Amino acid sequence: MELTLKRTRMDDDVCAVARALDIIGDWWSLLIVRDALSGLRRFGEFQRSLGAAKNILTVRLKALTAQGILEQVPASDGSAYLEYVVTEKGRALAPVIVALGQWGDSFLFEPGEARSLPVDAQSRRPLKVQIQAADGRDVGLDQVVVTRPDGLAPAA
Amino acid sequence: MELTLKRTRMDDDVCAVARALDIIGDWWSLLIVRDALSGLRRFGEFQRSLGAAKNILTVRLKALTAQGILEQVPASDGSAYLEYVVTEKGRALAPVIVALGQWGDSFLFEPGEARSLPVDAQSRRPLKVQIQAADGRDVGLDQVVVTRPDGLAPAA
Repeated sequence: MELTLKRTRMDDDVCAVARALDIIGDWWSLLIVRDALSGLRRFGEFQRSLGAAKNILTVRLKALTAQGILEQVPASDGSAYLEYVVTEKGRALAPVIVALGQWGDSFLFEPGEARSLPVDAQSRRPLKVQIQAADGRDVGLDQVVVTRPDGLAPAA
Repeated sequence: MELTLKRTRMDDDVCAVARALDIIGDWWSLLIVRDALSGLRRFGEFQRSLGAAKNILTVRLKALTAQGILEQVPASDGSAYLEYVVTEKGRALAPVIVALGQWGDSFLFEPGEARSLPVDAQSRRPLKVQIQAADGRDVGLDQVVVTRPDGLAPAA
């Protein structure tokens, strides 16, 4: 059973994670960006890939364009169609998508089960993300702390 | 205007990104994991932090526990309450959260606007994620390709 979840606006939240999720926190949006990063450009291509209803896809594409994550460009074949390509802001979501793929790969497949993953354009080998400190030092998962948006210390 | 989006099951999708989003692709779930990584453990703490209705929070916490992302442990103060802590599988979502924070920090705040971000437990400085190839080589954003789940080549 899936409850319909009330959507609270978080676009002025002090937490950068919350503010990001406010924009791309439904999975249609991230899957559209995934498909754009895989080279899809046309409405019909996204629709076939995602199996999404036209009205849902239209709303999502408009929102992603309004947010500057996708932009519309003239069709590459010279036809009258418009196509969607990722902007710099959209391409900057690649680490989120790679991190999701890494997590899915690690925990959500049976051994040997076929899977698709974000890959390096050159080697076609799977990509991963490494958490780093501001100085470039690698940081372990157990060293990640998310500061409290409200500035309160946890109860501990 | 926010349409109610039809939720399609993707838990058997061949794409690791899609399968991951099927589990943690609504933002309540990732914000709960964010809060657990910040040290929150109790139902009331999550409720105050998220401003979520009790029934929504209950459903989400149960789902995250059933998925093995959180686990219930006896209260740290010896009381009869149960507390929630992240498992290894939950902590492995840290790169997703750090990547979201990095993106939000880069694109969703005005210069000088107050913000909270994932930080290094030691230095308390902001963290970032770096995309790497399987051999540890840093990979630029423009080298990220998501393979087509259906094996089809993009139209281009």
